[in-house]
Amino acid sequence: MNRIITISREFGSAGRTIGRGVAEKLGIRCYDQELIEEICRKSGLAEEYVKERGEYMVSGGFLGNLFGGRDYSGHSVQDELWSAQAQVIEELAAKESCVIVGRCADYILKDKADLLKVFIHADIEKRAKRIVEVYGESDESPEKRLMDKDKRRKAFYQFYTDLEWGNVNNYHLALDSGEIGIEKCIDIICSLY
Amino acid sequence: MNRIITISREFGSAGRTIGRGVAEKLGIRCYDQELIEEICRKSGLAEEYVKERGEYMVSGGFLGNLFGGRDYSGHSVQDELWSAQAQVIEELAAKESCVIVGRCADYILKDKADLLKVFIHADIEKRAKRIVEVYGESDESPEKRLMDKDKRRKAFYQFYTDLEWGNVNNYHLALDSGEIGIEKCIDIICSLY
Repeated sequence: MNRIITISREFGSAGRTIGRGVAEKLGIRCYDQELIEEICRKSGLAEEYVKERGEYMVSGGFLGNLFGGRDYSGHSVQDELWSAQAQVIEELAAKESCVIVGRCADYILKDKADLLKVFIHADIEKRAKRIVEVYGESDESPEKRLMDKDKRRKAFYQFYTDLEWGNVNNYHLALDSGEIGIEKCIDIICSLY
Repeated sequence: MNRIITISREFGSAGRTIGRGVAEKLGIRCYDQELIEEICRKSGLAEEYVKERGEYMVSGGFLGNLFGGRDYSGHSVQDELWSAQAQVIEELAAKESCVIVGRCADYILKDKADLLKVFIHADIEKRAKRIVEVYGESDESPEKRLMDKDKRRKAFYQFYTDLEWGNVNNYHLALDSGEIGIEKCIDIICSLY
């Protein structure tokens, strides 16, 4: 059975950078952008849609999502995306040991691979500073962008997995990247592989 | 400012053993039983009471605790214990770098020391096995004992700290000791000190 490291992360906590660092150090692949491209191929959906709706509920709250955009059978395009995403992730995990960033891979693979489930977080001040550095300024304050992203990622995770986002029990290892530092996070994860 | 490692832990997750291991490896003291003794001296309360009521709400649920045993001013013996406990923990942290196991030390010291806040957990099957090994059999099933302890520890923490027990954001590091192993947990914590 392949050994897969799943990295769940708060927006702006450097989870993707840590995932890439871990993969490089271990000589395995990290699936993040490549995963999105594969899901696009599989589902026929546009990249922007996959990026956004494969991890986030749309603005407008939980009920808006639950009932919005669903056909007479209660099915939505987001559900189609969820199925395609799960299929791509399962195929990857069957093919090779790797790092998978986000997209509920921890849940999708829970009985299907030998997992090391990691959660990366940091306090909001440090994340706010980071998103301005990485993604640039925007009209909204970085704190507001973070809170919106956090809320919608959490709602997505809970809707599709029935698990509580950010509860320690769902992960083998949770790290505060702001306190511990990116390099040290990479070292710890690699040491557990 | 002294550097303090606080270890919060689920019952049966080997948090105390890990705390002792870390302290030994770092050549600092670990406060657990010694802390209880000091709180007894300070408060004049009996050891069994301090052990039980310094981390657990009594059975009977949250409301039972909230309104039970309070005098006309809304004050309870458990609140007295909380004050004594906070005072002892603050004095310790001012005196020396050390490891403190449990007793909401992470919250009590949040602005008063340089903290490394650790949470130790494990799945219920592994904890059930461990508590039978460490504490022996009892009339109740180990799973039921664990669920009761978890529930009451969580209620205590939330009542006195207003924080959510077991939420990753409250800790710098959260480790699944059942998956990672006691020795490896000790190594990771020491590497961050």
